[in-house]
Amino acid sequence: MKYRIGLDISGGDNAPVEILRGAHLAQKETGQHIVLIGREPEIKQEAQRLRIPLAGGFTVIHAPEKIEMAESPAVSVRRKKKSSIAIGVKLLKERKIDAFVSCGNTGAVVCASTLYLGMIKGVERPGIALMVPTERGVSLVIDVGANIGPKPMHLFQYGIMGGVYYQLVFDTPDPSVGLLNIGEEETKGSEFVKYVHKLFSSSPLNFIGNLEAKQLFSGNCECIVADGYIGNIALKVAESCAEVFGHFLKDSIRRDPFAQIGMLLARHSLKRFKRMIDYAEYGGAPLLGVDGVVIIGHGRSSARAVKNAVQAASRELNRGINSEIKRRVNEICQNCRAGETSSS
Amino acid sequence: MKYRIGLDISGGDNAPVEILRGAHLAQKETGQHIVLIGREPEIKQEAQRLRIPLAGGFTVIHAPEKIEMAESPAVSVRRKKKSSIAIGVKLLKERKIDAFVSCGNTGAVVCASTLYLGMIKGVERPGIALMVPTERGVSLVIDVGANIGPKPMHLFQYGIMGGVYYQLVFDTPDPSVGLLNIGEEETKGSEFVKYVHKLFSSSPLNFIGNLEAKQLFSGNCECIVADGYIGNIALKVAESCAEVFGHFLKDSIRRDPFAQIGMLLARHSLKRFKRMIDYAEYGGAPLLGVDGVVIIGHGRSSARAVKNAVQAASRELNRGINSEIKRRVNEICQNCRAGETSSS
Repeated sequence: MKYRIGLDISGGDNAPVEILRGAHLAQKETGQHIVLIGREPEIKQEAQRLRIPLAGGFTVIHAPEKIEMAESPAVSVRRKKKSSIAIGVKLLKERKIDAFVSCGNTGAVVCASTLYLGMIKGVERPGIALMVPTERGVSLVIDVGANIGPKPMHLFQYGIMGGVYYQLVFDTPDPSVGLLNIGEEETKGSEFVKYVHKLFSSSPLNFIGNLEAKQLFSGNCECIVADGYIGNIALKVAESCAEVFGHFLKDSIRRDPFAQIGMLLARHSLKRFKRMIDYAEYGGAPLLGVDGVVIIGHGRSSARAVKNAVQAASRELNRGINSEIKRRVNEICQNCRAGETSSS
Repeated sequence: MKYRIGLDISGGDNAPVEILRGAHLAQKETGQHIVLIGREPEIKQEAQRLRIPLAGGFTVIHAPEKIEMAESPAVSVRRKKKSSIAIGVKLLKERKIDAFVSCGNTGAVVCASTLYLGMIKGVERPGIALMVPTERGVSLVIDVGANIGPKPMHLFQYGIMGGVYYQLVFDTPDPSVGLLNIGEEETKGSEFVKYVHKLFSSSPLNFIGNLEAKQLFSGNCECIVADGYIGNIALKVAESCAEVFGHFLKDSIRRDPFAQIGMLLARHSLKRFKRMIDYAEYGGAPLLGVDGVVIIGHGRSSARAVKNAVQAASRELNRGINSEIKRRVNEICQNCRAGETSSS
């Protein structure tokens, strides 16, 4: 199917150049129509400099304001109505684009999406779903930072939404769902986590219980549910490790000529290894729960990461994730909502 | 100084063999007197088999019961009064040993220590301080799992205690203290974290603000304060990463003969690299705040890790950490306690 994918050209550490390069790659490889949202003069000038022909596969939408990475999400979304993020999400709301991809301020994307698109009927809060490489393939972790003070029902719904996504995108019937906790036994953790465990245990989901953080990359569980605060920290620790190990390794071989020759011989394998642990391979992270397809890219996204994020958006549209989320959440939560007191 | 270091022989995944081997190593290298606490017949039999002469450097104390790794801490400590953990902590309380080292059930060690030793006057809750390798040396992270529902004052005191430890053990005047959070700005995170930020900001500590998890191994901060739940997850993610990267790397070079030769050439550097990220290098983690020197070793501790944990205990005793903690906590908290409502 051919879709109109909106792309935030102002967001991300490498904006606008890498984002534009990514748009070009995505347009060539996926054939989707890319709607470039950002400062029009800058987009046109950079496109010319990079020799990217804008005729045909692209539309440019002028968004003069830019939300910086460190700005307060709630404040900036309300104040900067002409930012690329606000305009992109509004275009999605008006069905002028089919999906919106941004590598900009994550909090602002979450905030604008919740504000302008609203939630899928029955869903209480959005969650960011991240694909992580594991020893057996890919696992999905939800939430990694959209909701830093979740209620039990939010986590429960993350399990439903993540399961739907995993099932439809990776063609896996009845994916396993686990809960990130400090121990495997159901008696472990805070009262909060124990209550969430109970919600999952009495649901029709394929719930396999608590998972310790050391199992995060084991591939033992397909959909891992986490408190957004903890999920965010877990994810950043993993990134930090990848970086620091690289430094340590380099440090350790720098003064060893044998090791240097060794690394030269192993360079193809090392490249393959690097690709395995590179976030860019796994595209952006879908913001599940909002009433529209929104993909959040990594702030440091390269052109390839941007292209993969656009592909993630098309995949989500092709598989009809949101209508299935609506169906499943309402089917499953009908029963359990009676026992739950508060909602938003 | 010569001390009597109590060692839990029943605790840990590799007990009793690796623990005994570690005791032997520690006795030879540090000259400390090691008090072996566990099942006496088993200790004597294994020592004979391993050709470890018990005369002279060791005392054996019979503790017939064993707390398993998966047992509930509170329940097992109360029920198994003759476990190696309960007996070890009681020996410390009675000043029959100077420090206690265990690689057993972490929760049970925390629970028994709090119950039998009590807290250092003025300290509200104990915290586990872990040394982590960074790009510039070693950072201390406190708490990594003793207290999974901390109050703001607990975290504040972790900052004081961790700072004292870092200062005295690593000879660093006025070490920097940071707060693990999902963003660097002081407006980031939950109300809880913001309040802790305020406590630190108005204290005499060398507080450098919030730290994101991606800076955990950067070495930018000497003492990193974390909620025990989050600290525990961060630590386990890091361990998991180290493991998974190893698997990925092996996978990636397995079918590449050039890479295999390369790795052979680089083997000395790879070994050095492995040592850099090996927890065993950094000894056990002190349980700070309880009225006695308690060191918690990793469950998977090897003999070398056990030896390093015993060394960590002697270091703590030599530097008089606990009396300095008492002095500093009471000096600093006198002012701020007026503003804090609850304590235990």
